[in-house]
Amino acid sequence: MKYIGKSVNRVDGIKKVTGELKYVDDMKLPKMLYADVKRSPYPHAKLLKVDTSKAEALPGVKAVITGKDVPNRVGLYLEDKTFLATDKVRYRGEAIAAVAAETKEIAKMAIDLIDVEYEELPVVSNAVEALKPDAPLVHPDLGEYHYGPIFFPEPGTNISNHYRVRKGDVEKAFEEAEHIVENSFFVPHIQHSPIENHSAIAQMDRDGSLTIWSSCQSPYAVRKALSVAFDLPLNKIRVLSPAVGGGFGGKAGTTLEGIIIPLAKKLRGRPIKLTYSREDEFVNSFVRQGMHATIKTGVDKDGKIIGVKNNFVWDGGAYTEYGVNIVRAGGYSSSGPYDIPNLWTDSICVYTNHPVGGPYRGFGMSEIHFAIEQNIDLLAEKLGIDPVDIRRINGLKPGGSNATGEIIEQCGLLECLEDVAKNIEWGKRNPPSKTNKVRGKGIACGFKAPSMPNDVASAAIIKLNEDGTAHLLVSGQDIGQGSDTALTQIAAEALSIPPHKITIKTGDTDHTPYEWQTVASRITYCSGNAIINACEDAKEQLFELAQLALGIYKRDLVLVDGYVASKIYPDKKIAIKDLALGLSLPDGSGIHGPIIGRGSFIPPNVRNTDKFTGQGEKPVAFWTYGTQGVEIEIDKETGKVDVLKVASCFDVGKVINPNLIEGQVEGGIIQGIGSAIFEELVIENGIVKNPSFVDYKIPTADDMPEMIVNFVENPEETGPFGARGVAEPCMVPTAPAIANAVYDAIGVRIKSLPITAEKILKAIKEKEKNS
Amino acid sequence: MKYIGKSVNRVDGIKKVTGELKYVDDMKLPKMLYADVKRSPYPHAKLLKVDTSKAEALPGVKAVITGKDVPNRVGLYLEDKTFLATDKVRYRGEAIAAVAAETKEIAKMAIDLIDVEYEELPVVSNAVEALKPDAPLVHPDLGEYHYGPIFFPEPGTNISNHYRVRKGDVEKAFEEAEHIVENSFFVPHIQHSPIENHSAIAQMDRDGSLTIWSSCQSPYAVRKALSVAFDLPLNKIRVLSPAVGGGFGGKAGTTLEGIIIPLAKKLRGRPIKLTYSREDEFVNSFVRQGMHATIKTGVDKDGKIIGVKNNFVWDGGAYTEYGVNIVRAGGYSSSGPYDIPNLWTDSICVYTNHPVGGPYRGFGMSEIHFAIEQNIDLLAEKLGIDPVDIRRINGLKPGGSNATGEIIEQCGLLECLEDVAKNIEWGKRNPPSKTNKVRGKGIACGFKAPSMPNDVASAAIIKLNEDGTAHLLVSGQDIGQGSDTALTQIAAEALSIPPHKITIKTGDTDHTPYEWQTVASRITYCSGNAIINACEDAKEQLFELAQLALGIYKRDLVLVDGYVASKIYPDKKIAIKDLALGLSLPDGSGIHGPIIGRGSFIPPNVRNTDKFTGQGEKPVAFWTYGTQGVEIEIDKETGKVDVLKVASCFDVGKVINPNLIEGQVEGGIIQGIGSAIFEELVIENGIVKNPSFVDYKIPTADDMPEMIVNFVENPEETGPFGARGVAEPCMVPTAPAIANAVYDAIGVRIKSLPITAEKILKAIKEKEKNS
Repeated sequence: MKYIGKSVNRVDGIKKVTGELKYVDDMKLPKMLYADVKRSPYPHAKLLKVDTSKAEALPGVKAVITGKDVPNRVGLYLEDKTFLATDKVRYRGEAIAAVAAETKEIAKMAIDLIDVEYEELPVVSNAVEALKPDAPLVHPDLGEYHYGPIFFPEPGTNISNHYRVRKGDVEKAFEEAEHIVENSFFVPHIQHSPIENHSAIAQMDRDGSLTIWSSCQSPYAVRKALSVAFDLPLNKIRVLSPAVGGGFGGKAGTTLEGIIIPLAKKLRGRPIKLTYSREDEFVNSFVRQGMHATIKTGVDKDGKIIGVKNNFVWDGGAYTEYGVNIVRAGGYSSSGPYDIPNLWTDSICVYTNHPVGGPYRGFGMSEIHFAIEQNIDLLAEKLGIDPVDIRRINGLKPGGSNATGEIIEQCGLLECLEDVAKNIEWGKRNPPSKTNKVRGKGIACGFKAPSMPNDVASAAIIKLNEDGTAHLLVSGQDIGQGSDTALTQIAAEALSIPPHKITIKTGDTDHTPYEWQTVASRITYCSGNAIINACEDAKEQLFELAQLALGIYKRDLVLVDGYVASKIYPDKKIAIKDLALGLSLPDGSGIHGPIIGRGSFIPPNVRNTDKFTGQGEKPVAFWTYGTQGVEIEIDKETGKVDVLKVASCFDVGKVINPNLIEGQVEGGIIQGIGSAIFEELVIENGIVKNPSFVDYKIPTADDMPEMIVNFVENPEETGPFGARGVAEPCMVPTAPAIANAVYDAIGVRIKSLPITAEKILKAIKEKEKNS
Repeated sequence: MKYIGKSVNRVDGIKKVTGELKYVDDMKLPKMLYADVKRSPYPHAKLLKVDTSKAEALPGVKAVITGKDVPNRVGLYLEDKTFLATDKVRYRGEAIAAVAAETKEIAKMAIDLIDVEYEELPVVSNAVEALKPDAPLVHPDLGEYHYGPIFFPEPGTNISNHYRVRKGDVEKAFEEAEHIVENSFFVPHIQHSPIENHSAIAQMDRDGSLTIWSSCQSPYAVRKALSVAFDLPLNKIRVLSPAVGGGFGGKAGTTLEGIIIPLAKKLRGRPIKLTYSREDEFVNSFVRQGMHATIKTGVDKDGKIIGVKNNFVWDGGAYTEYGVNIVRAGGYSSSGPYDIPNLWTDSICVYTNHPVGGPYRGFGMSEIHFAIEQNIDLLAEKLGIDPVDIRRINGLKPGGSNATGEIIEQCGLLECLEDVAKNIEWGKRNPPSKTNKVRGKGIACGFKAPSMPNDVASAAIIKLNEDGTAHLLVSGQDIGQGSDTALTQIAAEALSIPPHKITIKTGDTDHTPYEWQTVASRITYCSGNAIINACEDAKEQLFELAQLALGIYKRDLVLVDGYVASKIYPDKKIAIKDLALGLSLPDGSGIHGPIIGRGSFIPPNVRNTDKFTGQGEKPVAFWTYGTQGVEIEIDKETGKVDVLKVASCFDVGKVINPNLIEGQVEGGIIQGIGSAIFEELVIENGIVKNPSFVDYKIPTADDMPEMIVNFVENPEETGPFGARGVAEPCMVPTAPAIANAVYDAIGVRIKSLPITAEKILKAIKEKEKNS
């Protein structure tokens, strides 16, 4: 292949490094107003009074809105919220009212003038407690909401979705087991911490058409949510996402857009901007849900796992947004990348009075693997088997079956495992750098599939220019991951045009075609396939013309370096540029006209499944498997963990761009390290205590380990040129591998994230006390 | 039909009447600079020195450019110019240098500091004189230029194109003729006078990609010209035309864009704006070419014209731009709408040192019909035949043949003639309103075809939304004529979706698909056909899905009111919205995905023709025929002409939108009245003497006559729903009808436009003196 597998420079590189790319908050439109939001100081309270009269009277204030102005219930999968609270607030920071004013300062003053009376309600601050029969209800009116087809909320409880897997007979397996281990794990809430905060501008013209500029991952999903919320037809809403400075899932949904639109409706013709503060990012956008896991595992005498019972309780926060789908993914992935014949899983999403859970790189996989991969090590220790060996025994292989009973046809997991074992020098113990330090190694596997429940579709348009260049229109967003470049390469390969001759356009629902969402590591796969289909459509048209121009049957033609050429006589050819506007026949009549290829793609998920048991389901298009091994060093005096080296290997089917995929995996590893040893949103009685980078630590350049980033290329038969996604999977094994290495180093197992110096020091001291 | 033929409100109406629509000059981009242009005070001169050093030193000046910065020759059909003069200037006002500065005022000061030394050259100020062998040459290097395929410049002369028609034996016809009349006519230069002056902004990003916002009719034509001029691939140039405040042909080409781009190249990342003054509009954009016509006509005793010899000499100005194609159109249309068995035409485009001739509503047809339609009346008078009768005798009928020998299959000319004769009450003489006034009636026919020589192609994309609404993407520009509305109606009819559910997007070469140019009354026809093809493509996909969803064969399906329904059992149906993102099959697998229709169109012109004789050519896709009759009143004391009433009838094939087409024809009539009695660019020795609305008069509301606007609907078989264009034809007969009415009123014939009060008074006095 000519352009696939090459490290083509980022197509957005120059604009990004020169600062020329304009993000939403860089935009200043004529007559623009600024919005601010009145937020609840209580995690759970009835709204008794919302008096905006003083704010409305403040000079410079142009409009004030409350929940009454935004009555429609919205939600991506389950319509459980309004953009502004109406009767009550369900988390601290929930929006109650908003203003638009001539300056940010006036907007802020007006917010302070809004008078709200609350009646505090008991706070639901623990997901497990929230399942008890007498727990206060966050959504007493749950039964009244509108649900999507695959979610099963339980009215009268705090359960917004309960996903079940019932495979084989797990109780019988436990009876037959040689050993049974049971362990509990906890993963706290963390935040995405993108460089760019959320920002959006809304403008409604006097003819009722609405334009939104938003730093969002998924303009089409935002358009749909706004259409529901504001009763607007889709052709009257234009969502533009000019640039996104990091998403990681946090910009996948609809957030602040819903607050500024009712202001824009009141102030026709004037653009209104709202940009989140960093504190808003931590508290009022989305967070990664906390999760409590209990895993009970039965194993035979050879180390083969014969039964697993999982209980995953997810802290979905005040509104479900993506939460209900994350627990579904956590459920159908609950075997981990292992062949478990008998599996019972309850994966439960619970309402609490916490910040709203949203998608976060990994979509639940990092959380469940933190539990699964430590449990495997605990099992190995109990059996006296090497951690790599127990994975060799139980790891999924072609012919094996996963949680939902799907027979796995192709799986490179063990290849990845062997590669990582070699590169991390498994079994070799290196001396620590100082005497007060100790070293350890850990290994973990992982897998992930794109979770795409319904409405999932992609489209692409390729527009050929009369000089042989082209424009590629898609709505997959480059949120930093490099999709603009990878997708351009896919079109280049499909059309035999060099990437620099193709300009990719994204993020404009009026112009760029449908894309469900930029989430789930799915863009290379889904948008890539749509692009190939679009290029095939263009190619078919080119061949129709070329067969007339060259007098050669279509079946004997091929695209080569910008030409349609004969397969047999390569010198017989005609340039794409000479066909791009159609063809004039010898009699002077033209045929066809400008060539535009259009392509669509729906992933081949088969869903004829027992919804409640999960049996027989193939809920996903493909799985990405991989392994990471780490070497760490712990300072026994301070408890500080230093990650020295990470070896990574994933089966990505086909590497589209080596430089970009390496960068992507390195980013995933660093984010994995962050979640492993630094990051936690500390929430006490519904209140986030550390909503700033002063108190919430993320890794910096100093924390970068040596990284060996490898790939296996077993082609995904349904993928573009064999590729599958790796954006999320690459951070999944990092935290459990570190946890396993910590155990290897100091002999204590930390079962809750993050593995802070404090926890380690405490564990070392307890161990010393007990020994 | 449900949406065709209905007076749907203008889709851009609210934005236009509220002032919300932003034109280019309304735009103010961050860090924008302002350009100004150094222009030649001489119509013809060598450039001896261009010293920009003082301008460059002026604080606030960011860049200064001269011809050296823009060396590539450009031109739509004939590459005879550079955007800034290099060796010499060929008209007064030609651009020599340009600056970009922080303010308009500084830019103006800098221009004054540019020191240019000239050596004046003899001025070519009359097209007929310019044909003489010893005339100075405007382009001595004519042989070196690059020509398109259908133009025949004559190096060593001032002829930029000489189009010949040689049909039958015209000399023999003259020998056999009962009567021969020969007359000469003159049509002066006029200007388009759009409400909005030309304006453009250019910005080149640091990665070399160029964005142009331009008030242009034809973004794709501008893109191509700029690609040639600046050696940029088409995928690196984005031309946006956000709104156009009137074009009439004047914004069809590339003008000021070429001046600001070299500035933008020097000042990467900074937008540069240039907006023409009204004086620039008159002198430095395009003008309608002046034209000298001589027509010799032989007629038999029954009033049947048997031979015509035409000599049309067009004053193309300093550069050809569209001129060479206008003379071609003037040539192949030189029979007028009459069946002339023997025809000899020389239609010659001549370089002069006048402002550059560009397209103007009618593309030469108003000019030649001013001559043809008076000549017919002169003939009628000579023969003692009524003017309506002579047109009945000679007017084209099905089976007749036009100038190039094309056999006319279908032609509603005589229907139009009868309708107008009735409505203008032909033969009835109404009393004048006062005793010092006289009344007269005149009639004229006309025809026009879209002139589309090569590269002519259109494309459309229709993108279906998941709520059953749609986006229509085309690049035909709504320049006031209402195409956004008409094209939306065409898509609505083709897809059975109401127009308000379709949002049309135009004018963005990165996003909206190819359109050759918005000229030649071709958008409804060409873009309309591309839209129908795009809708057919979408429909085919909808039917593919619906046949599976409904279990009904495609051939038995039909689109009805947003549903795909069974032809036989109308209740069996599925909504477009439920198919728009594809279809999930019963086994859960999805097929197809988002529905995008793409359509293209090349007009069915056949061009296998003797290029020099024009014989056998069918150079056009269709002809639009029509007639107008006028009643006027002349004040014998002042000479002032008052147009009281105009009756108009055109065969438009199919009326798409009654309100819009009536408005369009009324506008054409008023513009025809302007050219008939008010408008003339007075040029003396190469210098325009009246470049302002103080000295150049156009009609105002006071000059509006009573108008009866009718249509005949003989469907154009290749047109969308039978439609053909009428934007230009509708002003073609107005001026000759007025000239004929003037003769009817006062018995003197004014053979040069405009028919001013001065000319009439002089003619009345001369007539009185002679009688």
